[in-house]
Amino acid sequence: MKLADDEVKRATLAAMASSKKFQGPRGTRDFYPADMAVRRYIESVWRTTSINHGFDEVEGPTFEHLELYTHKSGPGIVSELFSFKRAGGETEYALRPEFTPTLARMVAARAAELPKPIKWFAIPGHYRAERPQRGRLREFFQWNVDVVGGDRTPDADKEVIATAVSALEKLGLGPAEVKVRIGDREVVTSLLSSVGCADEFHTEALSLLDKKDKIPQDQFQHAAQTLHLDYPLLIEHANAVQRMASQCLGTRTDPAPAMHFRQNEVHLPMEWIDSLARALTDSNVHDWCVFDFSIARGLAYYTGTVFEVIADGERAVAGGGRYDKLIESFGGPSMPACGFGMGDVVLGLLLHDKGLLPDEVYLAPLRPHVFVISNGAEQPEAELPRLIAQLRKAGCHVRHTYRATRNVGKLLGEADKLRSRTAIILGDELMEGRVVLKDLEGGEQREVALDDLERALREVLDAQENAGV
Amino acid sequence: MKLADDEVKRATLAAMASSKKFQGPRGTRDFYPADMAVRRYIESVWRTTSINHGFDEVEGPTFEHLELYTHKSGPGIVSELFSFKRAGGETEYALRPEFTPTLARMVAARAAELPKPIKWFAIPGHYRAERPQRGRLREFFQWNVDVVGGDRTPDADKEVIATAVSALEKLGLGPAEVKVRIGDREVVTSLLSSVGCADEFHTEALSLLDKKDKIPQDQFQHAAQTLHLDYPLLIEHANAVQRMASQCLGTRTDPAPAMHFRQNEVHLPMEWIDSLARALTDSNVHDWCVFDFSIARGLAYYTGTVFEVIADGERAVAGGGRYDKLIESFGGPSMPACGFGMGDVVLGLLLHDKGLLPDEVYLAPLRPHVFVISNGAEQPEAELPRLIAQLRKAGCHVRHTYRATRNVGKLLGEADKLRSRTAIILGDELMEGRVVLKDLEGGEQREVALDDLERALREVLDAQENAGV
Repeated sequence: MKLADDEVKRATLAAMASSKKFQGPRGTRDFYPADMAVRRYIESVWRTTSINHGFDEVEGPTFEHLELYTHKSGPGIVSELFSFKRAGGETEYALRPEFTPTLARMVAARAAELPKPIKWFAIPGHYRAERPQRGRLREFFQWNVDVVGGDRTPDADKEVIATAVSALEKLGLGPAEVKVRIGDREVVTSLLSSVGCADEFHTEALSLLDKKDKIPQDQFQHAAQTLHLDYPLLIEHANAVQRMASQCLGTRTDPAPAMHFRQNEVHLPMEWIDSLARALTDSNVHDWCVFDFSIARGLAYYTGTVFEVIADGERAVAGGGRYDKLIESFGGPSMPACGFGMGDVVLGLLLHDKGLLPDEVYLAPLRPHVFVISNGAEQPEAELPRLIAQLRKAGCHVRHTYRATRNVGKLLGEADKLRSRTAIILGDELMEGRVVLKDLEGGEQREVALDDLERALREVLDAQENAGV
Repeated sequence: MKLADDEVKRATLAAMASSKKFQGPRGTRDFYPADMAVRRYIESVWRTTSINHGFDEVEGPTFEHLELYTHKSGPGIVSELFSFKRAGGETEYALRPEFTPTLARMVAARAAELPKPIKWFAIPGHYRAERPQRGRLREFFQWNVDVVGGDRTPDADKEVIATAVSALEKLGLGPAEVKVRIGDREVVTSLLSSVGCADEFHTEALSLLDKKDKIPQDQFQHAAQTLHLDYPLLIEHANAVQRMASQCLGTRTDPAPAMHFRQNEVHLPMEWIDSLARALTDSNVHDWCVFDFSIARGLAYYTGTVFEVIADGERAVAGGGRYDKLIESFGGPSMPACGFGMGDVVLGLLLHDKGLLPDEVYLAPLRPHVFVISNGAEQPEAELPRLIAQLRKAGCHVRHTYRATRNVGKLLGEADKLRSRTAIILGDELMEGRVVLKDLEGGEQREVALDDLERALREVLDAQENAGV
């Protein structure tokens, strides 16, 4: 848009005088305080779990060169992206639809100097120009956890799966309601060959398998026929592999019968699957895991293990897998890699539906330490702002009333409503240098010298913390 | 971009086979672990300070309808924005260049039901399509703090200024190096009238004053002449107001001589300025504040108090002010409002230059609680993954080696390098159900029964915390 200076000036003055109500863009969210508290609670579980499992946080730009995304996915992806140029610029950018290309770019840029294995997590915003629907928005936040480099062993796959499980457990979910369904790209492609689907059709066949539950059955059957994919036979074979793999889960010492599986001379990486099952068992997350070799996953770059975290048998909470060729394709050295992404939208709905988001859970870190009250007399009124400033400087979350009332009972009610942990009342005792400190958990109150107030307050707060309040 | 299916397929296959190195977009940053730790440290000081001062966190979409930004600023702003449409869509969007329009939209949408005053903070990403330079990037993070609604008193201005100062103090800065320069739009416009600049030139004159130090002097003088702006006289008047206003800072009981200022019959809001000075004094931040009535601030929507936080006399760390008409112009009721924004780029450079970002400050929350070591014997090797999983489940940040060595001395070196607080060594004692727990701060080590390990570890960590490590 290029306007003459005068035109700009007139339009600007007109704009400043007008009043208009706006809505946020479709498929995005306004986070009011309660919404934001929930988002920060989920993020904090994600972050703490990542750190406890030895991952370091990283982040990249919110927009990247468009070519970073078309490089691996081809030009077909452009319609799913928000892409743009700078006014007067030629470079094409796109809002980040997933984090993995940024991660691959960042790893490739410093592959030599980074200590291996590279264990990174990120919690950035992601953007998709799709039609918004329940569980799918145009802006969402996604937890990404990746292990890159080091030895190529199933331990890395186990680490990312255990990290996902650990966060879900912390959020209140259990293995009865959430399952990690683990498959393997190598197994699926071997089985595809075994049922008559030629190599050149594998990419399309994987994409078709991933879409199976999202398209009409006759459409699926027609497509399968075109690709010479005998689906019932594929599932029969997949189930056979699965039965054997599942025997390794939860056992630590039995030999793996699956290792000797050679159905129709098909090559299957049973040693890998057996080791993965044992590692999951050693890390005590086997109750959450099942093998399912009909899983394909949509993204083209997966090479080995693929997995989906499914709640109540149908809601996809997270997905991931191994992508051993990707770093190389972004100009880095050949490095094994695996990871997953878990979005905030489906997870948030799930936690909400299961009653796992009561106020006291997500508001706990936001409770005021102290609510300061003046009884309205001259000295307390003068002391009020100084005391508030002093306690905030000491690191306390301090609240006070904005109402005109100086009725101490009413103000204690306001403190309670804000779930304040304590209250300090500035009243007549102030003339002798003392104030009233009230424990709003225990209900006890006592007079404290103003000089000793910080220490006394800290004591009450520590006692509450030790009591687990 | 619309391609035939076959063409997409061919391009996709070609893309998958190729290898290419990419760079991030100009003016954006890749946050590797150390960069991210610094960013999270600054954000955590911003967040904790906001919460302690009684603000609630909010956030809006990363992109908004383009019209939200042109509504108040006119179409001239479009060239400074990254704007775009969805492929096949008509709606124009823009990446958020500042948070205030989103805040005004969100307040207007729920003005009736939100408790007043509305005290909100946000720490979102912001985007500007300008030429990147030192201290100015195309993507940056900005802390926004706002008080909206409630009584129109200087207490709100004081609250946001005190919150900014409190965070800077927590980050290690002091009033000798950082000053809050406080001006007032009403004072500047009154003074503009008093020196001969007519009302219709005020908007342009304010914008010119804001640019003064950024444009050549002769260009400034020429523009001032065109607007009938006698700059030397303006500064003389501004200094007279400033001298009187400054007398109120740091005093609590003296009468305000400034209240009787009526130079050239100019209307000046001296009662407001006097109250603001007293409120800043009561909150003990007056040492950080100076009045400077030559400050104009660039944004058109400011109505009263304006302020800039300046480090070392020249680096603008934050800026803000009062915008009493903005909520109304976004379709809300008439509500007083004031706030500020503080970006992460200039602040980060400043802290770095002053040596206020040593590793131990920003890495402190990321120190491992424990580094678990096996001596390589069969039983310790089997126990290692179970113990790691158990301690992580108990909420500990646990690390272990990925190297092949089982030399306990070398591995203790690795634990030290990671700044781990403790180490657990699984060795021959494991046969009797015991392990070695080593305090890596104090250096003491002792044998602990495996059943009692979690409790003993917690004891060592608590003792370290109480010792302030």
